[in-house]
Amino acid sequence: MDKLFIPILLGTARDERESEKVAKFVFDQFSKNTKIKTELIDIRNFALSETTPSWVESPIIAEWRETLTKADGLIIVAPEYNHGYPGELKLLIDSALKEYEKKPVAICGVSSSAIGGARMMQHLIPTLSKLGMIPIKDAAYFSVVKELFNQKGKIKNKQKWQKILKKIFDELLWYAKVLKEGRIKYPK
Amino acid sequence: MDKLFIPILLGTARDERESEKVAKFVFDQFSKNTKIKTELIDIRNFALSETTPSWVESPIIAEWRETLTKADGLIIVAPEYNHGYPGELKLLIDSALKEYEKKPVAICGVSSSAIGGARMMQHLIPTLSKLGMIPIKDAAYFSVVKELFNQKGKIKNKQKWQKILKKIFDELLWYAKVLKEGRIKYPK
Amino acid sequence: MDKLFIPILLGTARDERESEKVAKFVFDQFSKNTKIKTELIDIRNFALSETTPSWVESPIIAEWRETLTKADGLIIVAPEYNHGYPGELKLLIDSALKEYEKKPVAICGVSSSAIGGARMMQHLIPTLSKLGMIPIKDAAYFSVVKELFNQKGKIKNKQKWQKILKKIFDELLWYAKVLKEGRIKYPK
Amino acid sequence: MDKLFIPILLGTARDERESEKVAKFVFDQFSKNTKIKTELIDIRNFALSETTPSWVESPIIAEWRETLTKADGLIIVAPEYNHGYPGELKLLIDSALKEYEKKPVAICGVSSSAIGGARMMQHLIPTLSKLGMIPIKDAAYFSVVKELFNQKGKIKNKQKWQKILKKIFDELLWYAKVLKEGRIKYPK
Repeated sequence: MDKLFIPILLGTARDERESEKVAKFVFDQFSKNTKIKTELIDIRNFALSETTPSWVESPIIAEWRETLTKADGLIIVAPEYNHGYPGELKLLIDSALKEYEKKPVAICGVSSSAIGGARMMQHLIPTLSKLGMIPIKDAAYFSVVKELFNQKGKIKNKQKWQKILKKIFDELLWYAKVLKEGRIKYPK
Repeated sequence: MDKLFIPILLGTARDERESEKVAKFVFDQFSKNTKIKTELIDIRNFALSETTPSWVESPIIAEWRETLTKADGLIIVAPEYNHGYPGELKLLIDSALKEYEKKPVAICGVSSSAIGGARMMQHLIPTLSKLGMIPIKDAAYFSVVKELFNQKGKIKNKQKWQKILKKIFDELLWYAKVLKEGRIKYPK
Repeated sequence: MDKLFIPILLGTARDERESEKVAKFVFDQFSKNTKIKTELIDIRNFALSETTPSWVESPIIAEWRETLTKADGLIIVAPEYNHGYPGELKLLIDSALKEYEKKPVAICGVSSSAIGGARMMQHLIPTLSKLGMIPIKDAAYFSVVKELFNQKGKIKNKQKWQKILKKIFDELLWYAKVLKEGRIKYPK
Repeated sequence: MDKLFIPILLGTARDERESEKVAKFVFDQFSKNTKIKTELIDIRNFALSETTPSWVESPIIAEWRETLTKADGLIIVAPEYNHGYPGELKLLIDSALKEYEKKPVAICGVSSSAIGGARMMQHLIPTLSKLGMIPIKDAAYFSVVKELFNQKGKIKNKQKWQKILKKIFDELLWYAKVLKEGRIKYPK
């Protein structure tokens, strides 16, 4: 079995996005504490105006589809806007199809409020499930994000967050490994 | 009291969108059968790549905010993609804020499947509600959209659809009128 | 116009429910700070085994239907169980139909976690909307409920909660008043 | 590896429930066309008045917990009431916890309307996911249920439904098998 590959998607392109700090922290923790190959993907690298259906070939979106094809799972770091997900995240998700199937996904929510993206996840989960992904049981809620990092950009209460992320990574890797073995052993 | 104004938003920019036919039919019915001022707004006229938060002034989105400010209600015609709403629709919705408050909204769902956009509405409703809109009780479900129009682009079973839309328009107008009177009589 | 009547529903029957304290606090605040007639309704007073559809007459549920008929709005205080609403709350909601129409509803969420019932609300809102209620824009999130009250059962940070509830009550009453006038002036 | 066991839950207790016919058809198809051990579980056999939290031992609900413990997956047949799931289904789901983990679930929706339970599923999926279940990609939508069966109680268009169910069973069994192997090979 090949080495696992699990990219991390920063799912907002908005000016002054706070989620960037969270995504970098998650990427950092994942890189250091698992031996899994990863990559931090910035949604800004994809054309937000892309409205080509997923069944049409598109050079702009080809890189995203290739990354997903190689991936054995996904971590999405995204904020909640008006109790839903960012539009650009949905545009990107909708631009692939078969590439998601039988792979686990973990969601790290970010919010300026105390709710930490929980409502956005309620909407992301059925969509990811429809695409054949497996949203794992646990999630991380980065609430009141403006107070989470110190002036040097370091997260406060680091150990608390490390513990939360460890639980999520463990569960994600269990599924990534088991489902990869399943995809190899029992191809359709 | 000024005349009511209720625009109709075509909420997908995707190539080969089927919702355009539905939006035109809804616009046509609304224009003919109510005496309400309206306008068909194509989401393609707004920059999909716009990621300016709603609290920042933006020339690109100014027209949308002005239209909403004048509006006494809204009709959204939108498809369901992967059991959620189109990303471009969320980008546009997220680009205004106070402009939505205390105004009713009706949703016409479009789908290539038999479900008619019902799942997308489950996600649109809490977001519109959070913005202070009043999603009305009834909705229209334009299921299996590829079979709904004849070769000349005319809707089949017109009377059935007229009856469905009449019920929705009646409810929308009740709220538009009552809430406009309320906004005038009891300003904050 | 008759005096407004807005009952408050405690929406969990579970043993050792923490939401009872919250419901009593909300009831207390609503009674003291508005001049609106109210009543605290305990869902335990209704038979959970009620499985009669809403279109059939049922003596067990008649009191609930009568209360709703007289009501000009509703406040629901309910916990989140497994990211959804309590089953008994849905059973009670499903036991009436026309009685909900054109009336506003405010939700106060309760949770042992930090999320305060936000996910449960995402599911309650479309259901209440389908029944013709108007879920108001704001909500109260009573997170980590075990730490909210002191040993004497008094809420900590009372002023913070009073401010949150005042905003909700103001919005609820605006809709209750405007929609009652609308129901009288423009009956169907 | 032991033989797989996948029970089928009829998730409504309502008088005159139409979902019973659908559950029997699904049970029949699953029994005949897979070699998997199954059982049709009627939610009426569990006390709806059960309000004991899942972390407390409860003789009334012990049988449900034991069935889940033995199960390698689950099929839920349930109607949509007011765009959500039946309250009694949520009460039963909430009465267990760890028993659901790392097991797939398929949902068969039933509706008197044309929507086939799609909205109810949007709410069931995040709850089942939070409990550690894996909602599979596809679902069955038994829309306009009153017209689906002939006077002898036989389903019309049997081949269409067999094809839909086959796809669901195949996917469910893939996950049941792969995850069971995973649970054995990589216990926590």
